[in-house]
Amino acid sequence: MPLSVKVLNILSGKRAAILNRLDAESLGINVYDRIKIIHENKTTTALVEISEEPELVPKGQIGLYKEIATELGALNGEIVYVEVAKTPQSVTYIRKKLRGEKLSSEEISSIVQDTVALNLNELEIAAFLLAQDFYGMNMDEIEALAKSMLKTGDVLDLPGKAVDKHSIGGVPGNKVSLLIVPIIASTGLLIPKTSSKAITSPSGTTDTMSVLANVEFSIEELRKIVLKVGGAIVWGGALNLAPADDIFIRVEYPLKIDPRPQMLASIMSKKAAEGISYLVIDLPTGRGAKVQTREEAFSLAQDFVELGKRMGINVKCGVTYGGQPIGKAIGPALEAKEALSALERPEEASKSLVEKSVSLAGLILEMTGYAFKGEGSKLAMEILRSGKALKKFREIIEHQGGNPNVKTEDIPIGRYKYEVLAESDGYVTLVDNTVINAIGRAAGAPLEKGAGIMIYAKQGYKVEKGQVLMEIYAERSTKLQEAISICNSSRPIVVEGMLLSTYPEF
Amino acid sequence: MPLSVKVLNILSGKRAAILNRLDAESLGINVYDRIKIIHENKTTTALVEISEEPELVPKGQIGLYKEIATELGALNGEIVYVEVAKTPQSVTYIRKKLRGEKLSSEEISSIVQDTVALNLNELEIAAFLLAQDFYGMNMDEIEALAKSMLKTGDVLDLPGKAVDKHSIGGVPGNKVSLLIVPIIASTGLLIPKTSSKAITSPSGTTDTMSVLANVEFSIEELRKIVLKVGGAIVWGGALNLAPADDIFIRVEYPLKIDPRPQMLASIMSKKAAEGISYLVIDLPTGRGAKVQTREEAFSLAQDFVELGKRMGINVKCGVTYGGQPIGKAIGPALEAKEALSALERPEEASKSLVEKSVSLAGLILEMTGYAFKGEGSKLAMEILRSGKALKKFREIIEHQGGNPNVKTEDIPIGRYKYEVLAESDGYVTLVDNTVINAIGRAAGAPLEKGAGIMIYAKQGYKVEKGQVLMEIYAERSTKLQEAISICNSSRPIVVEGMLLSTYPEF
Repeated sequence: MPLSVKVLNILSGKRAAILNRLDAESLGINVYDRIKIIHENKTTTALVEISEEPELVPKGQIGLYKEIATELGALNGEIVYVEVAKTPQSVTYIRKKLRGEKLSSEEISSIVQDTVALNLNELEIAAFLLAQDFYGMNMDEIEALAKSMLKTGDVLDLPGKAVDKHSIGGVPGNKVSLLIVPIIASTGLLIPKTSSKAITSPSGTTDTMSVLANVEFSIEELRKIVLKVGGAIVWGGALNLAPADDIFIRVEYPLKIDPRPQMLASIMSKKAAEGISYLVIDLPTGRGAKVQTREEAFSLAQDFVELGKRMGINVKCGVTYGGQPIGKAIGPALEAKEALSALERPEEASKSLVEKSVSLAGLILEMTGYAFKGEGSKLAMEILRSGKALKKFREIIEHQGGNPNVKTEDIPIGRYKYEVLAESDGYVTLVDNTVINAIGRAAGAPLEKGAGIMIYAKQGYKVEKGQVLMEIYAERSTKLQEAISICNSSRPIVVEGMLLSTYPEF
Repeated sequence: MPLSVKVLNILSGKRAAILNRLDAESLGINVYDRIKIIHENKTTTALVEISEEPELVPKGQIGLYKEIATELGALNGEIVYVEVAKTPQSVTYIRKKLRGEKLSSEEISSIVQDTVALNLNELEIAAFLLAQDFYGMNMDEIEALAKSMLKTGDVLDLPGKAVDKHSIGGVPGNKVSLLIVPIIASTGLLIPKTSSKAITSPSGTTDTMSVLANVEFSIEELRKIVLKVGGAIVWGGALNLAPADDIFIRVEYPLKIDPRPQMLASIMSKKAAEGISYLVIDLPTGRGAKVQTREEAFSLAQDFVELGKRMGINVKCGVTYGGQPIGKAIGPALEAKEALSALERPEEASKSLVEKSVSLAGLILEMTGYAFKGEGSKLAMEILRSGKALKKFREIIEHQGGNPNVKTEDIPIGRYKYEVLAESDGYVTLVDNTVINAIGRAAGAPLEKGAGIMIYAKQGYKVEKGQVLMEIYAERSTKLQEAISICNSSRPIVVEGMLLSTYPEF
């Protein structure tokens, strides 16, 4: 069927074309079906959307989203030929997984390729992810998933044995990478740390680092920085490492699912794309964290180690206490400030932040033979105390285009502030990750970098009535009001009477 | 956030509004999130879509699909206020089902209400349907699903005890309702038969009936016709009976799933909305049908009967042979012709069509006490042979606005024809439902009513080389070519050597 092109400037994030209802009916197709579009010597496929009304796409025309129009070189008013396209083979593999069957590595690879090529619609991708959640995957399937995700993207090529640290996330205030990367880099090991922006928390490592330096680099630029200073802290999203992951995440986000096979494959494919040989994975465990129990953490750790083996990466997992925020600060600017000041004066810094950072850095030092078993964290602490890590961090900031002489007091934070006071004497029995995340985001973080929370009372602290438990910061008064309203209707920090006399020490 | 309205004429089938990326970021929301839109004294919620480019929706504007703009009474250029909306409670119930937990009837009702109100996005609905597929539902849950689907729509109010017949579908050429409805109606029983358009086959009962009469009526019009002539064959889609079903089907269609709990609830909610007391359900069983084995059919039958009991409907299921098409004709016009001629001269008609029709009609007559047990199909056959059913069918056609004196030769069929010949002597071992469906649809059915297939050789027939096995009809030569190409690459009718000496008789 010949149709006249109407170029549309909507970012659908889909490979979609809009047909008039009458044309769609005469082709015998419906929404979510696929068509082949032919223009001169170019052919492409697209998912069908349907316009009921002639104002947008009249009969005889086809609305093309910009990316497809560009690909076909089709201009407004030009004629393209449209026919019904076959359903991609990968859809039958998704249906196979929906029946609970195991998939071969070729079948998984076909699904991943069609995901990246945008040949699958979001319902099909959701079905694949939900089937993983329901039926699980065995290690062969997970390996195939990770390796085919790796193949669809670029790879960082570094000499020698590079290392990295990754956290599965979920706990607020987890700015440990800003300490770990410079500690490791100052030993001479290469650590090309890529990270994500926050999905559910008020700040991801990328958001925090972006307060101090640029985080968006090409893979070649990242390579140069790492070779020069030994380490970097950059946004993974700009690097095209395992790009299928971004599409899977876009579908997982509205469904609020995080299927374990997909999580394992996503993380390990991205890390394999960094070309690293050693990896320490932080598994925050506890109430309100992604992993609730030690048993769950150990089972996940086993899978990471096994998958690492199959991908050629030596993996060690650190099960860490994730039942409350790490350190005191939450939100991009507040966390950047806390990290910088911990590098400057580690002895004055929050114990949970420093201990967690040197423990994980220590694991890397032990794995790579830079420290004897059991002595890694001591060595990491020495490097931190010596000022070498601070010096290295300033070098990294400089090479990422930031101000290497930045002082903590230079970092701007939200001008609107609200203090949360203890309503009674007692002990802190809970700092609720979920509520803290909600308050931080309502205050404007991570997009408004000065927004966030300072926590002054953690689990087990004895507090007196009227004492400041936490402060909320915001850049706009309306956002502060929203955060306060969540704070008043939930309980971010629970103070109870003399119920506790000790507390679990980390 | 105040935004200026830009009305868009896209039928999204969703409650969606398009924001510029920058405005979405400053609200801290993403695609699939929900916003509250306030205009004067009206408020509504919508799902967010994001435009990257200012040409469609510039910063400071909001693109509203026509239905939402109309609901808010918002015109182009008017200001609306937008804020982040809460996720509906029903989403947490969907997530509960995704964890394999049972849902209460209140929770299920909340999901169905939000589905009809378009408060759920398609990924969430897909997750609900897939969770049903994975975990199943117990009868309490299915009952709650059916009853809440019933509550969201209108109900047909008929005096006395009305009856109906329903087929779960899947077998091509199943035009039995065109015989059953007039047989039953001529006894004085009321049979308000509603049916759907074809989803995967070349013709649904609605498509076939639409060749002879109108099929789109309001619920009040349907009531009048049924009270006057005893029966009707109309499209359920225009009646607003259990409208949630249409939305569930829209999501099931691209995923090609048909979760059993949803199928049970969908059928029984629509039938309960017809206000009937007796229902016969046809379960076509066999290769290429929806139900593959007798065991499956009996288990499904038990569920239908139990659910019927809970909905106040006396249900009887007929497990019928569905391993090949019913009768000879496939496609709207060809099937209408075959049905009409079977009513005119039942003794000359296809045995499978007549036997199936009178068997199912007989079950209705037995259930309602119009015939003794075991004698229903004999009585139905008598009514058919007497010409009463034909007379009643012509009355129904007349009251549905068609020509009551229509002759079979008046019904136009596709002018392009292709004959498929036997390539060797032998026996027909298979008439493949799936391939027959694909050929019929490629030929243009059901949208092009004259398109379809005539089958002259069914399972067990002895055929000679060169004999016509089937004919393909189309209204356009390009469609005929497409159908022929499928026919040549698959095997709609399989003829094999002397492998068989008898065949399964229906």
